[in-house]
Amino acid sequence: MKSLEDILQSVGETQLRTLKKGEVLQRAAALKAPAVYVKKGLLRSFIVDTNGKEHIYMFASEGWIIGDIEAMEYDQPAQLYIDCLEDSEVILFNNKSLFSADLPKQQIEENVQLLTRRIGRLQRRVLMLMGTPATSRYKYFLEIYPELPNRIPQKMIASYLGIMPQTLSTIRKNLAKGK
Amino acid sequence: MKSLEDILQSVGETQLRTLKKGEVLQRAAALKAPAVYVKKGLLRSFIVDTNGKEHIYMFASEGWIIGDIEAMEYDQPAQLYIDCLEDSEVILFNNKSLFSADLPKQQIEENVQLLTRRIGRLQRRVLMLMGTPATSRYKYFLEIYPELPNRIPQKMIASYLGIMPQTLSTIRKNLAKGK
Repeated sequence: MKSLEDILQSVGETQLRTLKKGEVLQRAAALKAPAVYVKKGLLRSFIVDTNGKEHIYMFASEGWIIGDIEAMEYDQPAQLYIDCLEDSEVILFNNKSLFSADLPKQQIEENVQLLTRRIGRLQRRVLMLMGTPATSRYKYFLEIYPELPNRIPQKMIASYLGIMPQTLSTIRKNLAKGK
Repeated sequence: MKSLEDILQSVGETQLRTLKKGEVLQRAAALKAPAVYVKKGLLRSFIVDTNGKEHIYMFASEGWIIGDIEAMEYDQPAQLYIDCLEDSEVILFNNKSLFSADLPKQQIEENVQLLTRRIGRLQRRVLMLMGTPATSRYKYFLEIYPELPNRIPQKMIASYLGIMPQTLSTIRKNLAKGK
């Protein structure tokens, strides 16, 4: 089975980019938002609200795809900023190439599953933001992103969870005590 | 071009169901959550949190698909309840049939676009829950579901938006005054 990276290089145009920690790959209002495959490193996407506060939408480490799908699909300016939390190597591509008719059917089926699973994760994210206690949200974060807590400052995890950093600190202390 | 309804009937097993207003199609913890195409009527999906409070995930009127995608994809028990807000006719199907190899490529591409657009909408929903004032969220709701405000009680719209019914009432009054 080909890796996602091989597939991207076999269909459509791609662009390899090497980025430094802190570098901004995409700003809100940018046109033609690309899909971004992470070869190495760690990126995040976020919005800045009308009060200037950042809200983290997602993190993407090796093997993940990140991008502003709403902007891509509806051909709108980006809403999301994307920047690097570590030195990174990424492949920019057009998300439609994952479903190119040149790909074998089985590969297209796998790529469809990637999309469907992303919907499943987003469903859970919406439901959690609406009706789940912060402790459960943090536990789910650890399940989805097991390797990230050592690579990301606590305040960013709090921003992803939609809670105050102090709240996260209390949750972590309670979990460490086995509560 | 075939309609989604025709496609569903041409691939895989489907089940036609006629439901009364108030009828529950799926309860949390149900196994083998189906995808549900709405032929006629109006359904909603929701969770009940640990305090017994309902949070509405989505509404689906004619032509929409509703279902617990996380449960389907990860073969888990459903988290979402689905019930009818009006007398309805629905087609239950397996979401994989939208990507059956028996379908013409162009049709698969269109169905992939359905998924990708759903991700785009969910992205917006998450971002709005995190960092957007309630008035903007209500305006976006009207954009996505223009015909629903006349078919749904205000308190359900408030639940979908994640706000108190009183807050929605104030927002509506202010919008009516042109504020």
